[in-house]
Amino acid sequence: MGETVAVLGAAGYAGAVAAALLHRHPHFELAHVTARSDAGARLDAVHPRSRVPLVLEHYDGGLDVDAAVVAYPHGAAAPVVAELRERGVRVVDLSADFRLRDLATYEDWYGEHAAPGLIGSAVYGLPELHRRAIARADLVANPGCYPTAAILALAPLARAGLLADVVIDAKSGVSGAGREPTHGKHFVSVDETVMPYKVGRHRHTPEIEQELGGNVRVTFTPHLVPLSYGELVSCYVTPAREVDPAELYREAYADEPWVEVVEGPPGMHEVRETNFCRISLHGDERTGRIIVFATIDNLWKGTSSQAVQNLNLMFGRDEGEGL
Amino acid sequence: MGETVAVLGAAGYAGAVAAALLHRHPHFELAHVTARSDAGARLDAVHPRSRVPLVLEHYDGGLDVDAAVVAYPHGAAAPVVAELRERGVRVVDLSADFRLRDLATYEDWYGEHAAPGLIGSAVYGLPELHRRAIARADLVANPGCYPTAAILALAPLARAGLLADVVIDAKSGVSGAGREPTHGKHFVSVDETVMPYKVGRHRHTPEIEQELGGNVRVTFTPHLVPLSYGELVSCYVTPAREVDPAELYREAYADEPWVEVVEGPPGMHEVRETNFCRISLHGDERTGRIIVFATIDNLWKGTSSQAVQNLNLMFGRDEGEGL
Amino acid sequence: MGETVAVLGAAGYAGAVAAALLHRHPHFELAHVTARSDAGARLDAVHPRSRVPLVLEHYDGGLDVDAAVVAYPHGAAAPVVAELRERGVRVVDLSADFRLRDLATYEDWYGEHAAPGLIGSAVYGLPELHRRAIARADLVANPGCYPTAAILALAPLARAGLLADVVIDAKSGVSGAGREPTHGKHFVSVDETVMPYKVGRHRHTPEIEQELGGNVRVTFTPHLVPLSYGELVSCYVTPAREVDPAELYREAYADEPWVEVVEGPPGMHEVRETNFCRISLHGDERTGRIIVFATIDNLWKGTSSQAVQNLNLMFGRDEGEGL
Amino acid sequence: MGETVAVLGAAGYAGAVAAALLHRHPHFELAHVTARSDAGARLDAVHPRSRVPLVLEHYDGGLDVDAAVVAYPHGAAAPVVAELRERGVRVVDLSADFRLRDLATYEDWYGEHAAPGLIGSAVYGLPELHRRAIARADLVANPGCYPTAAILALAPLARAGLLADVVIDAKSGVSGAGREPTHGKHFVSVDETVMPYKVGRHRHTPEIEQELGGNVRVTFTPHLVPLSYGELVSCYVTPAREVDPAELYREAYADEPWVEVVEGPPGMHEVRETNFCRISLHGDERTGRIIVFATIDNLWKGTSSQAVQNLNLMFGRDEGEGL
Repeated sequence: MGETVAVLGAAGYAGAVAAALLHRHPHFELAHVTARSDAGARLDAVHPRSRVPLVLEHYDGGLDVDAAVVAYPHGAAAPVVAELRERGVRVVDLSADFRLRDLATYEDWYGEHAAPGLIGSAVYGLPELHRRAIARADLVANPGCYPTAAILALAPLARAGLLADVVIDAKSGVSGAGREPTHGKHFVSVDETVMPYKVGRHRHTPEIEQELGGNVRVTFTPHLVPLSYGELVSCYVTPAREVDPAELYREAYADEPWVEVVEGPPGMHEVRETNFCRISLHGDERTGRIIVFATIDNLWKGTSSQAVQNLNLMFGRDEGEGL
Repeated sequence: MGETVAVLGAAGYAGAVAAALLHRHPHFELAHVTARSDAGARLDAVHPRSRVPLVLEHYDGGLDVDAAVVAYPHGAAAPVVAELRERGVRVVDLSADFRLRDLATYEDWYGEHAAPGLIGSAVYGLPELHRRAIARADLVANPGCYPTAAILALAPLARAGLLADVVIDAKSGVSGAGREPTHGKHFVSVDETVMPYKVGRHRHTPEIEQELGGNVRVTFTPHLVPLSYGELVSCYVTPAREVDPAELYREAYADEPWVEVVEGPPGMHEVRETNFCRISLHGDERTGRIIVFATIDNLWKGTSSQAVQNLNLMFGRDEGEGL
Repeated sequence: MGETVAVLGAAGYAGAVAAALLHRHPHFELAHVTARSDAGARLDAVHPRSRVPLVLEHYDGGLDVDAAVVAYPHGAAAPVVAELRERGVRVVDLSADFRLRDLATYEDWYGEHAAPGLIGSAVYGLPELHRRAIARADLVANPGCYPTAAILALAPLARAGLLADVVIDAKSGVSGAGREPTHGKHFVSVDETVMPYKVGRHRHTPEIEQELGGNVRVTFTPHLVPLSYGELVSCYVTPAREVDPAELYREAYADEPWVEVVEGPPGMHEVRETNFCRISLHGDERTGRIIVFATIDNLWKGTSSQAVQNLNLMFGRDEGEGL
Repeated sequence: MGETVAVLGAAGYAGAVAAALLHRHPHFELAHVTARSDAGARLDAVHPRSRVPLVLEHYDGGLDVDAAVVAYPHGAAAPVVAELRERGVRVVDLSADFRLRDLATYEDWYGEHAAPGLIGSAVYGLPELHRRAIARADLVANPGCYPTAAILALAPLARAGLLADVVIDAKSGVSGAGREPTHGKHFVSVDETVMPYKVGRHRHTPEIEQELGGNVRVTFTPHLVPLSYGELVSCYVTPAREVDPAELYREAYADEPWVEVVEGPPGMHEVRETNFCRISLHGDERTGRIIVFATIDNLWKGTSSQAVQNLNLMFGRDEGEGL
């Protein structure tokens, strides 16, 4: 067995998937899972599909592990990550707390930061963009689910200087909204409708702009759709100059094991419970726009399988081990 | 009882809803329903929810009625409409055959036209834009479902000269794709995914551009979502100049009985099986974009209740009778 | 305008449908709607589809109305119903508090009763069985949704003395479980699964047995299915003697406006948002069993349109007015 | 690499899953996939989730393989299986053609048999009942999806002589009805309803009775529910004598790797895309009935992963290899 790992916040959807992947990982040893209100229960009682027989512990700061995946809400993660780092535990943090490199931008969107001193040491955990830095990092800020899809969809255009302005219309399954029961996630509220939310103010916006770089301005509108797992971003780009983007994408992703550029619009079925991101490119001849679709499983490549991909990189394992 | 009406093509989704509405209409008398492969069956056997006990007839050209709703596929409608008009029957045509005023544009998108001589006499059946002309018309071209939502969403901006360019990302329930069984409409294909289709080449595009007028260029991308009835268009506008659109929409729709401008994003539940279109306006402060959502029931305001609304106008009835 | 009616507990699913039906009722005047946590909001803000513009009031006991529909949880309804009855208000109670005629049975299944003195005056509000008594009643105990479907499915066999023992396997949409958010009603919990619940101990069981009468023993197992509105009961009967039940059902329901005996298995689409119950009969030749299916909309015939049907009867109106 | 395998009929749902499992199997080599109307396409174009890059061939009888999985419709399978067996190819047949040991029963339910001479050599491929015989078989008749769940749910009671008569109310996702587009599988037909079908005459009935043995009489009623993958059987048993079945099931399945006896009703999520069958037992104290639920993924344990389990047994591999 290799390094020991804990998953903090394993009763949520993302934490449970991370725990399930690590439990059956050929190298890492899933040593602890923690939760708040579900502490004391077995993880496979709360999430039977995980098939993880460990008891959810109450986290009190003293876990002796080599690495941790922190699946806490934004704001709540930072102090725990700081405490883990002080004790030398290497961390993949699923929250937004260390994703933004600019403190002022963080404060604009999220409020005060509980551990600003750590921001500089965190690496944005999108392997397709930052593979080498991740391999050397002790703290990886795992990307949000929408940013994962959106950045992979647009990075080749951005790098080529073709991206000035983009509309991203995103559609997400309900698991992306978390496990906490609310009126908005009640089956009857979601079934047979499509619901835009946080219009013009979703917190994944600055993260997308940071990674696309330069002065790219993003209009990002997420919609809740009546399905459980999966995410599609539909990106509308007016390119800075005329271009055939197909070659760009082929080059960008030819050697990427988890990004598949396909011809037709990509469907969620083919990425469900995988680490794949599927992308397709389309020209709108009449308007000159480029339309890019990207789909992922929001809990896998969008969160937890990407976290394992990052852990693999951080510990010198094969990137796809256990995925 | 008032005028007699036939619904041609009543075995399809749109025809069945039109027949159901006319069957219980307080004024019109639903005299005939026709179908091809289902001829001989009762309509309430094919579509139990319609509760229309009439037998589907094979149409052979000889129906003696005052008016007809023609629910035929594009191309197949034109010759039948021509034949009905020759005999003096007033027609609401649900197909695209008479929606485009420009023959060349029609031919670009649909191919040859079977009755080009009638194009000039058809009125585009969106009452909110053409109420008076509809009231005098003998042939009304009922709008497509996407155009109904998109035009209502954007017309106030277009009329004010603020609309130069727009991205319309549309989401539709599966009934919008028709009743014919195909792999793409199989439950397993649609469930748990969102599928863009006809990217950059959906035939509703020229219809939207025609009605928004001027030189507006539209990027229109429909997506199939896993639900049966309902449609949402998400419209992204970079306005030609800075503007507070709220006042524009209030004025435009203050006296419109079927258009409701609401604050939050509109949901499909509140328009299902109604003739309402619900619209909301949102500013994206960071980019200056205006985002407009509009939702309708694709088979009601998007097709068949709008057809009845048009029939009411054509025969001098109260516009909302029977709706 | 006719009598004034209040709906108490109008923020729940059942109360909102009752309010919507009474708001557009040609005779009754919906005078008040009440709620607890949503008090102060307009009903059409909480339930846009209701289109009821009234403000939800906090109920404090002093409403001056002719009748009330009480949509409170079991146990909470009885004291409020008692208070309303003392002031002479005629009541349709949607809870289970007055459905069981035997106090001991009530206490077995629900615990202590808050107003046992009223039990004797309540009439079980299934018009197809108790129409005349309802017309004379001041307190009607509106049936549960499952009992409505199950009793209508089985009453003709029970009356004919053919029913000794029955298995009822029921499937219900999620609205039947109420509006309160819980893990079990989270979209992700319900989607893509079928979940039996309260196996062998659902509280609708004694109600079904009471109305089927005699010594009928019922095994009743409800299942939650991934849809919002609608209910199907599949009833398996080993008849006491050989019988062709078709004639029994024809006679029983020939003059019932809201019960439709159909040939094929009935679907939820054809009863959705209606007061209809659809029933079909099937023989299993190999085993001699009779299989009866019945479907209703759990919030309409299963609850709120049936409440309006009862109100119509209680006030001498046509039974189907406003439905 | 080990033995070569072909999947005949790989464009259907069951065939595609079998091909996907064999393609990534550590021992077997998936050498050929065949199809009729999709011949010439790559399997991963028809079923992207399979990720099988092989081209679908037209089958003309000459494949040189060690084993074949035949995923043909009932009736069409028998002659092909006969031809394969003549050439020494070992076969797992997914059709019903060789499941019934009694020719007369087969003919009653399916009509004439194309290869009656082979019936005697076929083994019913439910490893939990016939593991040893499967290991020696050259022709395995893979069970139907409903029989897999129903037999596993009831076998311990049947073996103990407690089962005289049973009602099985089954609920299945739409993939169980196959990939061919029909009106009944159109998304709009299935969404928001539950539909009983083939009441009293589903062809899986004799198969269940055969395996439960003795003179057990089964009333079996399948229902289509609005989901894609998964199956639940709800079994209602009046036991021949009083009994605590918990011990029976513990003994029966203690050493079975793929059968999990759980406490609460089992959900489809926890068996999806697995070879597991989950079972729970409940007593209905009031009536003395035993209620047994069993759930499987209809395309995995219900069909194709069970086929691989059988292939593993036939070729002396570990039963769970590649699952």
